[in-house]
Amino acid sequence: MLPRPHDDGRLSIGLDIGGTKISAGVADARGRVVDRVPPVPSPPDETAVLKAVSALVDTLRSRNPGIAAVGAGAAGLVRWPEGRILSAPNAACHDMPLRGLLQDSTGLPAVVDNDANAACWAEYRTGISASHMAFVTVGTGVGGGLVLADRLFRGRTGIATEIGHMIVDPHGTDRCGCGTVGCLEPLASGRALGRYGSAAAAAAPGGALAALADGAGRVTGEAVTAAARAGDPAARAQLERLGHWLGIGVATLVNLFDVELVVVGGGVAEAGDLLLDPVRASFRRYVTAAAHRDLPDIRPALLGPEAGWIGAALMALDHGEETAPAPRPGA
Amino acid sequence: MLPRPHDDGRLSIGLDIGGTKISAGVADARGRVVDRVPPVPSPPDETAVLKAVSALVDTLRSRNPGIAAVGAGAAGLVRWPEGRILSAPNAACHDMPLRGLLQDSTGLPAVVDNDANAACWAEYRTGISASHMAFVTVGTGVGGGLVLADRLFRGRTGIATEIGHMIVDPHGTDRCGCGTVGCLEPLASGRALGRYGSAAAAAAPGGALAALADGAGRVTGEAVTAAARAGDPAARAQLERLGHWLGIGVATLVNLFDVELVVVGGGVAEAGDLLLDPVRASFRRYVTAAAHRDLPDIRPALLGPEAGWIGAALMALDHGEETAPAPRPGA
Repeated sequence: MLPRPHDDGRLSIGLDIGGTKISAGVADARGRVVDRVPPVPSPPDETAVLKAVSALVDTLRSRNPGIAAVGAGAAGLVRWPEGRILSAPNAACHDMPLRGLLQDSTGLPAVVDNDANAACWAEYRTGISASHMAFVTVGTGVGGGLVLADRLFRGRTGIATEIGHMIVDPHGTDRCGCGTVGCLEPLASGRALGRYGSAAAAAAPGGALAALADGAGRVTGEAVTAAARAGDPAARAQLERLGHWLGIGVATLVNLFDVELVVVGGGVAEAGDLLLDPVRASFRRYVTAAAHRDLPDIRPALLGPEAGWIGAALMALDHGEETAPAPRPGA
Repeated sequence: MLPRPHDDGRLSIGLDIGGTKISAGVADARGRVVDRVPPVPSPPDETAVLKAVSALVDTLRSRNPGIAAVGAGAAGLVRWPEGRILSAPNAACHDMPLRGLLQDSTGLPAVVDNDANAACWAEYRTGISASHMAFVTVGTGVGGGLVLADRLFRGRTGIATEIGHMIVDPHGTDRCGCGTVGCLEPLASGRALGRYGSAAAAAAPGGALAALADGAGRVTGEAVTAAARAGDPAARAQLERLGHWLGIGVATLVNLFDVELVVVGGGVAEAGDLLLDPVRASFRRYVTAAAHRDLPDIRPALLGPEAGWIGAALMALDHGEETAPAPRPGA
């Protein structure tokens, strides 16, 4: 692991542009939170997204003089270093050159990357960390990032490490949001946990999970986690099922990337070892040549839901060579 | 792609230490074959492997004065840059510090890497090539390598890119040679093609494949390819089945590594488009966000069975900074 930068007094604004809300705050070069604003709902179109983002930046700058840069992590496919959002889950942004737009509207050097890459960078820089590490985030969907030799791995154009779209069950029945059958995401996401919980509730109408179901018989992933923590065996079995699939994905990541640490974040990871123990067991079962490798630790992320904006803020400060003005939109 | 080195007059010995035979030859800095010796059978233990390798090196040096380096590609897990063979398929080598042993016995700077990495490097340096490319070799097993930003990607310790061990069918029935159920290799290797062909022969006793079966009803992968080339629909269906699985593996590679080119080599790739067209179709079905990416070309390798030793010879010339003497065995 590289030595962490000293606090050099520079401050940066970070933004996390998700499918449902936009979070933002100010961090220093060590990733410490200096300021934050309440999240706002994600607007439905690009113009409104840019307007909302500009308002958040203005608010934070007015309270924090000397902001040096701005970074944004966005859900979806983001081309790097151009900072163009190719597509976003809620379709609010489509082929949107956000980095250039941000630079124009703020006059600050800006970076824009995928939200999971940003969260990975925050964990690497301030949380649990290793020079070669995988970060897997399990929330509504499944995403992640890779740090290789102390650098965020982005591939050729920035759209690498689509961890939720590793093909792990090609002849299965669950279609991914991306349209493909077989991706990890529909088997290992918070949404999958809700689906597993709903099926278990229907199978045991007198059980603890059924008591948590809504009028339509649906159980949320959060409810499954809560019931598992309270000791319900059926709820724990659903986390084991999720962990089984996640461990399969982690095994493929380790077989391909040879990392020494795997960090699991996102809302579902708040289940702690109720999720991670099954992940570890499944990983050991599926990783190749276990006897010949130092098996990586699989550990929970230290940063919570603010990892995205904090990582984006750090990225803006860390990648000085990449903060030259982006091509103007449309140019 | 980086400019290819000019021919600087340096020559290098390359070795490909496989499960059944050892191939060797001399190449120049552009990967042109200057000399070669007939392959010898792979010996059953480490002492005999080292003796056979030394004899091949002696023969080639006696005929080619001015050899500058020696490189070996070995089947199995190889730690880089140490050049230690952690394990080999036929168990001849186990925790064998081949790089140091080669340097001691020849007095030449040496490198030792995984055989598929070596073949990948040969293809990158002399064949079809791109700055970000995946190489998949389909022979008895399935292996491969990745070139990222014009460098061979080896991960932290050298044992990355175990492409044959991506988990693609975790609830399947076919156990991999590594002991795991779900790996790509038992579904997409030459051995798998033989198994598919044998099953098809049994299902159609009057068919072309049954006519190719041995006394025990077994068909080889080579026989299936030959029958497919001759137009047998059942044989073509087996290549399609293989290509289906291989395309799934390629989709995960592209989702994770964002490469611009995928090169398929190894003996089974000699089936050409009878294999690659199904690979391409399966890849397009399983890759995520196809509409938002430049889909990589999937092309057959240009180098044949000599890719391994040629790549090892090139690696020995290309990685000058890594050819400092390895730690002495046992030190």
